[in-house]
Amino acid sequence: MRLKFRPADTSFYDLFTELAGHLVDGANLLAKMLDESSDRDAIAKQLSEVEHAADDTTHAIINRVNQTFVTPFDREDIYKLASSLDDVMDFIDEAGDLVVLYELDALPSRMASMVEVIQRGCELTAEAMPRLRTMTDLAEYWIEINRLENQADRDYRRILAKLFSGEYKALEVLKLKDVVESLEDAVDALESVANTVEQIAVKES
Amino acid sequence: MRLKFRPADTSFYDLFTELAGHLVDGANLLAKMLDESSDRDAIAKQLSEVEHAADDTTHAIINRVNQTFVTPFDREDIYKLASSLDDVMDFIDEAGDLVVLYELDALPSRMASMVEVIQRGCELTAEAMPRLRTMTDLAEYWIEINRLENQADRDYRRILAKLFSGEYKALEVLKLKDVVESLEDAVDALESVANTVEQIAVKES
Amino acid sequence: MRLKFRPADTSFYDLFTELAGHLVDGANLLAKMLDESSDRDAIAKQLSEVEHAADDTTHAIINRVNQTFVTPFDREDIYKLASSLDDVMDFIDEAGDLVVLYELDALPSRMASMVEVIQRGCELTAEAMPRLRTMTDLAEYWIEINRLENQADRDYRRILAKLFSGEYKALEVLKLKDVVESLEDAVDALESVANTVEQIAVKES
Repeated sequence: MRLKFRPADTSFYDLFTELAGHLVDGANLLAKMLDESSDRDAIAKQLSEVEHAADDTTHAIINRVNQTFVTPFDREDIYKLASSLDDVMDFIDEAGDLVVLYELDALPSRMASMVEVIQRGCELTAEAMPRLRTMTDLAEYWIEINRLENQADRDYRRILAKLFSGEYKALEVLKLKDVVESLEDAVDALESVANTVEQIAVKES
Repeated sequence: MRLKFRPADTSFYDLFTELAGHLVDGANLLAKMLDESSDRDAIAKQLSEVEHAADDTTHAIINRVNQTFVTPFDREDIYKLASSLDDVMDFIDEAGDLVVLYELDALPSRMASMVEVIQRGCELTAEAMPRLRTMTDLAEYWIEINRLENQADRDYRRILAKLFSGEYKALEVLKLKDVVESLEDAVDALESVANTVEQIAVKES
Repeated sequence: MRLKFRPADTSFYDLFTELAGHLVDGANLLAKMLDESSDRDAIAKQLSEVEHAADDTTHAIINRVNQTFVTPFDREDIYKLASSLDDVMDFIDEAGDLVVLYELDALPSRMASMVEVIQRGCELTAEAMPRLRTMTDLAEYWIEINRLENQADRDYRRILAKLFSGEYKALEVLKLKDVVESLEDAVDALESVANTVEQIAVKES
């Protein structure tokens, strides 16, 4: 007989999975936006809606943790996980926003490669969230995220070098640098999510 | 008869009110500084003094929380509230500092609108702090702060678009962007204060 | 007879001392790199190795705190101390990285003065870590770090003023500003380490 019945807790996993699902949607919209022929204003609007949905889920997690007596893992870790997932969304949204605001046309091709890393990272994160329930097969997730982060970091450095190579004008450099920094921040936030998951797993083991 | 006598705790509310009062002073000085005919160096000196006073109050809160056994709400939340209030001050101070350091003359008019949002946000925050004691009428405060943050965000985006419109030279863009980012950071920090207050209120309800 | 035997805990002091030792190595490498005649690529590689070693030590501290029942001071403070020490390393590494990536030749002389502050701050930090065990003579450490931070802040502001004086081209300003901001961030992170030590000391007193 199983008496360890905690209905209030189980939904944390569902909420984290939902939140990571919003990230996947956001990353896919950002990838679409890189295509110059896309309707960027329309996509930016969709991205903004996804960002609001992610905000709502984050609030739901934080309200639940504040009102729940028994949580599946440390309160602090729940906050940290929710807020770092929300950070990923914010940086994806910021990048998309800047592409529209700055009316950017030609983007260095390595930017597309960074966005692919973000898409892959969000997918892996969304797949890992339900596994928090059993704490199984999580190591492969955070190892792969760390690998992706290293790859994105190399892209980031090469983009910076290219921006300052003399090929771009100062104002263009300023604009592109803002976008690429948002992408880099999104990747770092994905790594921060993975680090938090690792910490939770170590505590529970 | 009322026995729930906790003199050590009550002063937290006074200290938070004092700290938010410094923010009001700082925001008002920043608004004065936007006027080109003002004595910016003199105002910057006053702003720096206000910033030091805010530092002292923040330290007093942190020392008190470390030495007090019973705190009116979670230790972590007290830290978070104090440090996000202190962040608001730091960003106001940074913005004023850059205006002087960069010898800026003509500031886009929307910057004045952002500073007004900061002034209003600081006033609302200072009015809300004493209400932490009874946890009443706080929702209207954080709802209004969120509305102000959305307004400032629209100003911020429009200022960025204007900076890159071709009207300004690259170095001027760099300078003005630094200032406007400090303003945006101050508004975000005000929102972070409001979020912390909301979290505290949810826990206590 | 001394029964307060906690072998598991004592090693936290050793790990913090080890981590701060990596910072000293990193700061010294950064100082070497400012010399234009140095082999920057080789030094950057060494710096990157030191950064990885610091990462390993940080991970060891976090894993230990997660697996240890009794810790010498608050878990949260151990996390905070480890992560702010790690931040110092990251900013030193970032500064060195940018010097190489941007192929910078002539650096404003005040930058060397900021790097000296970082070297001195790292040394003081490394000397203070073992004193956490007895909580003695720590006040002089955090007072001196605060003094150094003020000095670096004046250098930082003067470098910014120089960058915008008209002497440098916009792209050069962008590059140098990135480097000097990394230096400033490193100094701020050193101050944040000192603040955490102060908080720990206040709690234990």
